[in-house]
Amino acid sequence: MAIPPESLDARLIGRQTMLSGVPTIPFVKAVQSRLSPEFERGFHKGTTTQDILDTALVLQMRDALDLVAADLVAVLDGLSALARTHRDTPCGGRTYGQHAAPLSFGYKVAVWLAGVAEAAARLPDIRRHLLVASLAGPVGTLTSLGEKAPAVLDGFARLLGLETTPIAWHARRGRIAEAGCWLAQVIGALAKLATDIANLASTEVAEVAEPYVPGRGGSSAMPHKRNPVSCTVILAAHGTAPGLAAGLLGGMAAAHERPAGLWHAEWHGLPTLFGLASGALREARALAEGLEVDTARMRANLDATRGLLFADAVAGRLGARMGREAAHNMVEHAAGEVRRSGTHLRTVLERDAPGADLASAFDLAPAVAAAGIWVDRAVDDAARVRETLQGK
Amino acid sequence: MAIPPESLDARLIGRQTMLSGVPTIPFVKAVQSRLSPEFERGFHKGTTTQDILDTALVLQMRDALDLVAADLVAVLDGLSALARTHRDTPCGGRTYGQHAAPLSFGYKVAVWLAGVAEAAARLPDIRRHLLVASLAGPVGTLTSLGEKAPAVLDGFARLLGLETTPIAWHARRGRIAEAGCWLAQVIGALAKLATDIANLASTEVAEVAEPYVPGRGGSSAMPHKRNPVSCTVILAAHGTAPGLAAGLLGGMAAAHERPAGLWHAEWHGLPTLFGLASGALREARALAEGLEVDTARMRANLDATRGLLFADAVAGRLGARMGREAAHNMVEHAAGEVRRSGTHLRTVLERDAPGADLASAFDLAPAVAAAGIWVDRAVDDAARVRETLQGK
Amino acid sequence: MAIPPESLDARLIGRQTMLSGVPTIPFVKAVQSRLSPEFERGFHKGTTTQDILDTALVLQMRDALDLVAADLVAVLDGLSALARTHRDTPCGGRTYGQHAAPLSFGYKVAVWLAGVAEAAARLPDIRRHLLVASLAGPVGTLTSLGEKAPAVLDGFARLLGLETTPIAWHARRGRIAEAGCWLAQVIGALAKLATDIANLASTEVAEVAEPYVPGRGGSSAMPHKRNPVSCTVILAAHGTAPGLAAGLLGGMAAAHERPAGLWHAEWHGLPTLFGLASGALREARALAEGLEVDTARMRANLDATRGLLFADAVAGRLGARMGREAAHNMVEHAAGEVRRSGTHLRTVLERDAPGADLASAFDLAPAVAAAGIWVDRAVDDAARVRETLQGK
Amino acid sequence: MAIPPESLDARLIGRQTMLSGVPTIPFVKAVQSRLSPEFERGFHKGTTTQDILDTALVLQMRDALDLVAADLVAVLDGLSALARTHRDTPCGGRTYGQHAAPLSFGYKVAVWLAGVAEAAARLPDIRRHLLVASLAGPVGTLTSLGEKAPAVLDGFARLLGLETTPIAWHARRGRIAEAGCWLAQVIGALAKLATDIANLASTEVAEVAEPYVPGRGGSSAMPHKRNPVSCTVILAAHGTAPGLAAGLLGGMAAAHERPAGLWHAEWHGLPTLFGLASGALREARALAEGLEVDTARMRANLDATRGLLFADAVAGRLGARMGREAAHNMVEHAAGEVRRSGTHLRTVLERDAPGADLASAFDLAPAVAAAGIWVDRAVDDAARVRETLQGK
Repeated sequence: MAIPPESLDARLIGRQTMLSGVPTIPFVKAVQSRLSPEFERGFHKGTTTQDILDTALVLQMRDALDLVAADLVAVLDGLSALARTHRDTPCGGRTYGQHAAPLSFGYKVAVWLAGVAEAAARLPDIRRHLLVASLAGPVGTLTSLGEKAPAVLDGFARLLGLETTPIAWHARRGRIAEAGCWLAQVIGALAKLATDIANLASTEVAEVAEPYVPGRGGSSAMPHKRNPVSCTVILAAHGTAPGLAAGLLGGMAAAHERPAGLWHAEWHGLPTLFGLASGALREARALAEGLEVDTARMRANLDATRGLLFADAVAGRLGARMGREAAHNMVEHAAGEVRRSGTHLRTVLERDAPGADLASAFDLAPAVAAAGIWVDRAVDDAARVRETLQGK
Repeated sequence: MAIPPESLDARLIGRQTMLSGVPTIPFVKAVQSRLSPEFERGFHKGTTTQDILDTALVLQMRDALDLVAADLVAVLDGLSALARTHRDTPCGGRTYGQHAAPLSFGYKVAVWLAGVAEAAARLPDIRRHLLVASLAGPVGTLTSLGEKAPAVLDGFARLLGLETTPIAWHARRGRIAEAGCWLAQVIGALAKLATDIANLASTEVAEVAEPYVPGRGGSSAMPHKRNPVSCTVILAAHGTAPGLAAGLLGGMAAAHERPAGLWHAEWHGLPTLFGLASGALREARALAEGLEVDTARMRANLDATRGLLFADAVAGRLGARMGREAAHNMVEHAAGEVRRSGTHLRTVLERDAPGADLASAFDLAPAVAAAGIWVDRAVDDAARVRETLQGK
Repeated sequence: MAIPPESLDARLIGRQTMLSGVPTIPFVKAVQSRLSPEFERGFHKGTTTQDILDTALVLQMRDALDLVAADLVAVLDGLSALARTHRDTPCGGRTYGQHAAPLSFGYKVAVWLAGVAEAAARLPDIRRHLLVASLAGPVGTLTSLGEKAPAVLDGFARLLGLETTPIAWHARRGRIAEAGCWLAQVIGALAKLATDIANLASTEVAEVAEPYVPGRGGSSAMPHKRNPVSCTVILAAHGTAPGLAAGLLGGMAAAHERPAGLWHAEWHGLPTLFGLASGALREARALAEGLEVDTARMRANLDATRGLLFADAVAGRLGARMGREAAHNMVEHAAGEVRRSGTHLRTVLERDAPGADLASAFDLAPAVAAAGIWVDRAVDDAARVRETLQGK
Repeated sequence: MAIPPESLDARLIGRQTMLSGVPTIPFVKAVQSRLSPEFERGFHKGTTTQDILDTALVLQMRDALDLVAADLVAVLDGLSALARTHRDTPCGGRTYGQHAAPLSFGYKVAVWLAGVAEAAARLPDIRRHLLVASLAGPVGTLTSLGEKAPAVLDGFARLLGLETTPIAWHARRGRIAEAGCWLAQVIGALAKLATDIANLASTEVAEVAEPYVPGRGGSSAMPHKRNPVSCTVILAAHGTAPGLAAGLLGGMAAAHERPAGLWHAEWHGLPTLFGLASGALREARALAEGLEVDTARMRANLDATRGLLFADAVAGRLGARMGREAAHNMVEHAAGEVRRSGTHLRTVLERDAPGADLASAFDLAPAVAAAGIWVDRAVDDAARVRETLQGK
């Protein structure tokens, strides 16, 4: 006996939910009134509102996680390709906003990739923890089904393609908090790349640009602007997600067999987190697949500090000869002169440390080669993670 | 020359916003295309997207704050009446979940009232800080209007009934964060009363019940349930609001003249906070105006611990005679016997401290009278706050 | 060549850290000045401040996780024993603070146990993700070690008993955020039991008491008080932990190869989270091992609502005869009469539904038996989790 | 009769606090044992643990707020001087990380100043709300003092230089949450300037540098580094503060007359927030007083985009002639050519819109003059706020 969903008056059930506090009560009444007596006697038997709402939530999250997984695969693929393409593209490494030492652009992308892969690698566990049915009755013991309760629970779960838990999770919300934290972690991993890209796309750095889409990134006032819209969407999600995750963690202190409020707070936080993650993933995919990279500009920026980017390499070379502390001090002193005078670091040091063979220290090749080692490792690792996402 | 809002294709502008990243760009284009050339030349002149969105936000918040103020007045009125009605109704004071010493139910309500009044008292400041126009142009200096800029800003603000700030607030979001924290504080003040009511309405305490509304608070499984739905709604809001407020505080680190993301994160958090506050206030008003109080049960519960509720009063009485530490120890010891044997504390102490006049220590009247002093003060103070809300 | 730690002037290094911003700089200088030239040339070679600090952090966290694991084992053991002891102790199930339906006290404990086990089961993953060495040099590429870099990293990690990551985690802080969220989840699982125990220990419920320790739980004013100190400590930790976890999630947006601030924010949040978890676990262990349970009071409380606790069972029985909606309505109506008149639900229903065999619906045995099924499952599952904690 | 604080065994009281759960119990006992009987009878009379701890907290916060106020005055003074000095120093305005339109560096500083002033302006309210005594006894009614209770409370408060509240604030923690949010707002206002400074100090922008202090901002690996240590400290505080403020907001749901846990959670969050604010203010003061500004570099950076910084001004000029939308489109198209070809925007537009008088649109003077208007307003407003801080 089928009750087609569209035959129910969703608007009316919505209004009645304002009154009853939970949607199950008007829903159950609406269905009961259409059932033949024999079916009516078994409908909603043994179960309780929270079973229905939690299981429905899980089924929605299963679909949502499939979408998230597909987006993660696309982001991993896009970033892997980008990392490989720029495996040997020299680029400046920056710490505390300052030029630090050279690396490759592919290395930067590989770090983004590894962050996304790290979050993605947890998806199978999240699925396993989250995709569980709830059928436990008023206080979690499913008393009305007696000894058959575990078997009925198993059958119910199997029918829906879900797993079960050893004991009811009505008031045990760790899996919800974990899922919320994980979504915030996914968004956080994307925020890492959005932070970097927004900075690399800034006027002064100008090493990358978001994919060009006509009509995108403009300004209502400034006709020349090309704003990083995708980064903006991701960082807006990241500004909101951690607080929502905190709310779900707070909700774990659920009183007794069902709390008054903490369970219901999930209805505010959890769907929003899925929505934020989805939006952030969509934009990250666009970035991963279409980022415009200005390799010439990257190369030019490397020279901006007249050799200071190689200070670590030079100090290492000198240190082997004169001791590390003495070398550190000499290069620190020389760097001051470079900043003041504009002279190249190599010129200053060839004067201060005559006879030292410094040419090789100012070579980009070793830094790029070293970076490549880690790019390959990160790409391989991401490929391994990617496989786990598709097998579900 | 008027462009009626309904003549714009909101759905189309919505879709174009997905592309442009901000709604102003398609909106401005849609209006421009309908303006005569002379008007078109002045439309959106000098200003920028963020001016339009922030000012629109402020106008929406002004309306929202009026609704919040009206609800706050109703809650203050309801709680003041309730506190007066039960000014002299004896009730147990509880600390750490334990019976501590007697007070009056009106006193408990007066504490709720004072919490709401304390939050409400800040509304005029919040309005003053928040209801400011934004008209500052691309980077905040309103350059295109030259020396006339402050006058144009003043005129614009006056037309909208808003105030101005000394310098643009595009990237200075303290007022937004403050508003978000304040909304969370309002919800927190309501959560205090919801926490108390949910506990007082629990089966074992049973001193109050939420207002009876047919169809409300039932259970889809348990026909006898009368769940505290209003408390649940308030506590669900409280489980979510602090994290959203934290997100707005985090957004204060806005880079340069307009950040990529932190401003946009407000669009997730701020409207949700208004919605949560509105829902919580509606339910708090229902509780304040209709709470059912079982004074007989309150009185009966006072006797549940066979005199232990008076331990502080008794110790005070004995302490004046034998020293406070000795008295504390004697009563502590007697309390253990009460718990073990079920004998009344007075009986035990009349045996242990013969001759002491303990009768008056077991009198409820002094506690109720003492409570009344503070009820009156809190009600008077709330009345003062109430006045400030209506004058706007 | 050994430099004994106590030979370094920690106070001086501390003062110099105020200046330099990171402790590594004065530490490295202090050590360098004591090394023979040949050692000095190799000291701190290739590496950078963050390698040293992050690896030191990991080593500290390894020790901390061992302590957490030992506490988790003790809590699991204590709760398992408690659940078994009270497997068949009848107790009221409560939803929304209201008596809902009977279960066993062992069932309640088993839900706590399952929550702790769920968090504990994630510890091996947390260890695997977290216990990784950092040796990556200034920008993560370990350039100065050339092709030997991976081998040196592996050797370094092996020496410390740590794992490695495919690519540097300097600016990839998902593992830190994950650990923080997990600690908050552990605390949240304990907050569930603390919430329940604080309520069950309340004067009106009085079904349990915290373990009696002379001098504990008193009041400076009220000689009769026995406050739930352990619950208080746990709930105070839970009030703080989610916000700290949110801070760590927010820190994932680390810019480039090392951010200015987000990494350093971890130094505020992460140690505090470990401290809060440790304190909460210590108190939870005391509760698990020593909780005082008043089974007579539990039994007495079951009768407090004159049969309403069996409303679900009765409605199920009647529903099989007259249809579920009709039965629900009849029992709902009868429940109102019970509340008003004080008559027992069974008496009312024997009048309203003459001939129905209701005796068995008012029997506690089926509820207790049903609860036992899940207790056994939860205890078995926790034993399985426990094994994974000890094998490390 | 005086008990010198140093005569008490703080270590012993600390150990006993682990047991009792609150420090007042062992403290009261330690003092009682030294008092003559007549004093002993009055010691701790009428009051309760929370009165002592909350009042002590308030006294500590009063001292802390004085330090915060002094730091705020110094930051306001430093930023006001810096804004005046650079009132007419041309500088690029940046939105979404992109060059947008010119302004002055003084304008940027004035925005920072206004943000700090906005937070500072709330200090008198925070003081008024926060600096209140607590003397309310076990359940808040101060019953043991009878009718004299308000007078005793007033006297106690007057003696300590504190105010009173209409009714006890034991379980009404809005003022604590408000203070926590305010501290987070102060830190947020500082994080705004730290974010800007860290970016302006980045290698590619290089328009400012943190004050030079020998030994500060170096790197253990890279001898040329000059890291923005002050910004790092401020941003680390900002990464942590919002979550702590959220915890205090969450704590408002305090149950009954004293909760088990939510009050105690304040002990984790509140002192940390004061510490974070203090550290951030110290560093902000150093920045405000000693920031190094490279005006030549600022000027040079303005030319980096070959006229694009003036796109808004040019479009405004053209719009008056050809309509705003047409002008916007023409300049948008020209900007694309500038980016591709490297030709100056003025050259392109003089070709595309011959006859238009564009010279004045590429003049920095109007932008700098416009900025000056707002600098003056912000400096004046900050001076007004500054006065309110010193009067206390």
